[in-house]
Amino acid sequence: MAEELEELKKQLSGTLNKKNRKGFRKIFLGLHGYEQSQLFSAFDFEQRKLVYTFISPEELANVFDDTEEDPGEMGKYLDEMSDSYVSRLLTEMYTDNVVDIFTNIRPIKRKKYLGLLHTDEANQVRKLIHYEDETAGSLMTTEFIAVNEDQTIGTAMQHVKREAQYAEIIAYIYVTDDVNKLVGVLSVRDLITHPDDVKVTDIMATRVLAVDVNEDQEAIAEQVRDYNFVAIPVVDETEKIVGIITVDDIIDVIDEESAEDYSHLAGVDTETISHNPFQTALKRLPWLITLLFLGMLTATLINHFEGLLSQVSVLAIFISLITGTAGNAGTQSLAVAVRRLATNSHLKIARLILNEVATGIIIGIVTGLCVFVMVGVWKQNFLLGAVVGTAMAGAIFVANLAGSLIPIGMEKIGVDPAVASGPFISTLSDLTSVLIYFNIAQYFLQLFMK
Amino acid sequence: MAEELEELKKQLSGTLNKKNRKGFRKIFLGLHGYEQSQLFSAFDFEQRKLVYTFISPEELANVFDDTEEDPGEMGKYLDEMSDSYVSRLLTEMYTDNVVDIFTNIRPIKRKKYLGLLHTDEANQVRKLIHYEDETAGSLMTTEFIAVNEDQTIGTAMQHVKREAQYAEIIAYIYVTDDVNKLVGVLSVRDLITHPDDVKVTDIMATRVLAVDVNEDQEAIAEQVRDYNFVAIPVVDETEKIVGIITVDDIIDVIDEESAEDYSHLAGVDTETISHNPFQTALKRLPWLITLLFLGMLTATLINHFEGLLSQVSVLAIFISLITGTAGNAGTQSLAVAVRRLATNSHLKIARLILNEVATGIIIGIVTGLCVFVMVGVWKQNFLLGAVVGTAMAGAIFVANLAGSLIPIGMEKIGVDPAVASGPFISTLSDLTSVLIYFNIAQYFLQLFMK
Repeated sequence: MAEELEELKKQLSGTLNKKNRKGFRKIFLGLHGYEQSQLFSAFDFEQRKLVYTFISPEELANVFDDTEEDPGEMGKYLDEMSDSYVSRLLTEMYTDNVVDIFTNIRPIKRKKYLGLLHTDEANQVRKLIHYEDETAGSLMTTEFIAVNEDQTIGTAMQHVKREAQYAEIIAYIYVTDDVNKLVGVLSVRDLITHPDDVKVTDIMATRVLAVDVNEDQEAIAEQVRDYNFVAIPVVDETEKIVGIITVDDIIDVIDEESAEDYSHLAGVDTETISHNPFQTALKRLPWLITLLFLGMLTATLINHFEGLLSQVSVLAIFISLITGTAGNAGTQSLAVAVRRLATNSHLKIARLILNEVATGIIIGIVTGLCVFVMVGVWKQNFLLGAVVGTAMAGAIFVANLAGSLIPIGMEKIGVDPAVASGPFISTLSDLTSVLIYFNIAQYFLQLFMK
Repeated sequence: MAEELEELKKQLSGTLNKKNRKGFRKIFLGLHGYEQSQLFSAFDFEQRKLVYTFISPEELANVFDDTEEDPGEMGKYLDEMSDSYVSRLLTEMYTDNVVDIFTNIRPIKRKKYLGLLHTDEANQVRKLIHYEDETAGSLMTTEFIAVNEDQTIGTAMQHVKREAQYAEIIAYIYVTDDVNKLVGVLSVRDLITHPDDVKVTDIMATRVLAVDVNEDQEAIAEQVRDYNFVAIPVVDETEKIVGIITVDDIIDVIDEESAEDYSHLAGVDTETISHNPFQTALKRLPWLITLLFLGMLTATLINHFEGLLSQVSVLAIFISLITGTAGNAGTQSLAVAVRRLATNSHLKIARLILNEVATGIIIGIVTGLCVFVMVGVWKQNFLLGAVVGTAMAGAIFVANLAGSLIPIGMEKIGVDPAVASGPFISTLSDLTSVLIYFNIAQYFLQLFMK
């Protein structure tokens, strides 16, 4: 918590301890929802009990709507409140946030809280709960403003004035026909700059971008970002508007997706924080042990060349140099390919591969030459330098190519290419590098040593 | 380009070829700015020349404001237009986008185009150009709406109606005192739901979050995301409001920063696309060659143990298994530490390290035991299994710890911890792993083989 919030926490705790309702309200209600939620989560149980008597559920809704805390954690606070307080709180909150909490608490609790809501409200929540995770339906809220196409700017403005306090965002006013089909959109700017008697249909934009309720969140995030929207409408299969997704939720999606990509690249979930090292280890071990088996394959391959190794033991010195460098090159080309696939929808695959082939050749030759010189000079043996250098060039070329071919192949068979991790590529390239290295060494040996 | 846009491109090209001004305008002006910009960039030179006669510079400003293309590329189009067309286009565009273009074209061009602007407009652009990259000043636009604190809702609304068409966003109306200091903020929702005679000061929020003009973009993005703002005001050292940053620019910052983190983890710039393999190779080689030297250190270390290796050549078989697995564990803990440092401002460093120490011990023991059994059974030699297993446990423990200590250390000395890459950690852990492995082997050998 930032210093200013620490100071506020001290002040607010003071008012709570003195049961100073007025003092508490004066400070607390002047804060932003996000700040309120940070402070609220920092209070202890006794303090929270007082908060529920100091501020109304309608005022607390702000705290629950703007929190960045885990929805499951927020759900636990509901148990501390009276039934009528919970009911009013949930009714006042935006439906998408209620749904977030409900999908993160135990079913028995969910059922109880649903029972506290008015029938339409409960039905709306029930409907939203059933949308699959990471779809438009699971992200949207139902608090949007829509007007009928027959209205004028004046009557639309009256409607907006009435609805404004309930809507999550009023930047766009959606225009629907008599069967609720989405036919246009107005901005609040249009509304306030046009005279009252103008017809809505005369100024609305008829090219409305909407997403299907089952559409994947990543595609939606891309659209909102490209088009610079602050909200996007969601429609069902009959093109009726059923909700909107606001830009703050889109930002969370973008964060989530990029954290996922980052996690995949490292072969570990970087987001779920656990302070229990056993749980942390349990999350990292599966990937490590899987790769261990791949690593054992490499070991059996080296074992296969034990005769060669005992004959020319100097070869062992450069195993880790070659596998390590090839692994690094493979990780680079993997990361580039994954990002290209993710950000570029009309990518020429052939071109990407060709470019990686050429890049691999250049990188391989340059690195191979460096190694040739270094090893040759160091060991005073340019034949050995040639073996290690050639193996290095070959290993890099293969690792580089694998780094781009594997994610492309995964995309082709419908697997998220981001799942291919750096550790996987480098462990795989250990295998190919060793194969290349010892075969080249054997070949050179036969060529020159006989 | 999506299918629909391809179809639109065909239609629009048809109207251009037939010099059908009306037909072109009818289709083109009904599209979103982003779509217009996609199509505009797809036209060829002759077609663009016609576009400049078919649509006004004020209409084309939309295209330039909503493009996701490289600003330098957009700058090139200016050369194709007449001076008066450029002048009107730039005047109509939002200042932040003009600045984006100007910082990405040659100084001589910039000077020319600045000369085409009205004096105040040119001065505004000049001021913004001088802000450092990645600061609030370089992101902000000057088209915001501000009203004086003495006004009423009615007069403020009149002001907003006049200014709305110029402002980039009208969700917030900023309230300033007589010397332009930022004293409050109103939402457009407040404006339309309150009666005309209410004083602005009676309903404005006085706790306005603003960022300093020199503040770093990453910190700003965090604030906008946490608080769910659609814009944030920018103030100078005298607390005067000088601009706003809108959420669409914040999304670009978030994308940019997460792409940077991803690139760092792989040790490669994944964002700059080049179709020239020499350029691509040139970007990847520095990191690879640097790590090659670190890898050579590992090679000299193995060389140091050549006597041991020639005596017990079976040891060579497990070099890549140990270095590879330890590298994977190190990459995992690195990624976790970097993300924790980035997302958690009040992180307990001691706790993170302790947790990693414990996790490293658990992962080391489990993996070491697996290896002990596998090697023991395979080679029918549980002493060898013990050597490899113990070395594996030690190597993983050290790599795991290094993976979290290195980014923490970098943060402490003021270097961005994200710069520590996976390839760096795995190459470094090659060195420590080999050191641990051969020392343990030597120790066991002395213990049992004498």
